[in-house]
Amino acid sequence: MVHRLVVSYGQPDDPGAFDAHYRDTHVPLATAMPGLVRFTVGHPVPVDPSELPPYLVAELDFASEEDMAQAFASPEGAAAAADVGTFASGGATMVHFEVHEVPAGTTSRP
Amino acid sequence: MVHRLVVSYGQPDDPGAFDAHYRDTHVPLATAMPGLVRFTVGHPVPVDPSELPPYLVAELDFASEEDMAQAFASPEGAAAAADVGTFASGGATMVHFEVHEVPAGTTSRP
Repeated sequence: MVHRLVVSYGQPDDPGAFDAHYRDTHVPLATAMPGLVRFTVGHPVPVDPSELPPYLVAELDFASEEDMAQAFASPEGAAAAADVGTFASGGATMVHFEVHEVPAGTTSRP
Repeated sequence: MVHRLVVSYGQPDDPGAFDAHYRDTHVPLATAMPGLVRFTVGHPVPVDPSELPPYLVAELDFASEEDMAQAFASPEGAAAAADVGTFASGGATMVHFEVHEVPAGTTSRP
């Protein structure tokens, strides 16, 4: 099973500074968290021109919700969480959920 | 590479009816889309009590943004997209992005 935390960062005041801090400081803090099994990021593309998408979406996968809770209770997790407040000038919203795979039916897999 | 579409459904008026329609009607329509390589769903857990999370988060993975566009331009994609309006009483927001894997550093993988 996979338990996924999705962090959506709003548009920052200074995207260049955000990117540099994220890459050089936040990624090393986040990847040090115990129990993190997969970490991906993406820069959303606008779908509806009237709706500004988040600036960055980070997905952090753990083996279980308990593993995720333990990761954030660790010193590494506390450091990563505390760091968010130092660079997320456009805010950050988080949701987490158990990932359920939907069988892809008639879809062919490459 | 993976190009991911994330659909976040707001709290529906009637969760039971939403769940039944999603399972019996929407999933078959969505999984029929050409080029869909992975489809997962999750029911988010509230993080901050003051922030109501989406009711359901669906993630649809394609090999590329072009594959995703072709999927939605297909009759199957049009049918799946049109169906959303029939059951998403709490609204639905979509973002899509290229998924970049962040090397997990010191993290151990099970």
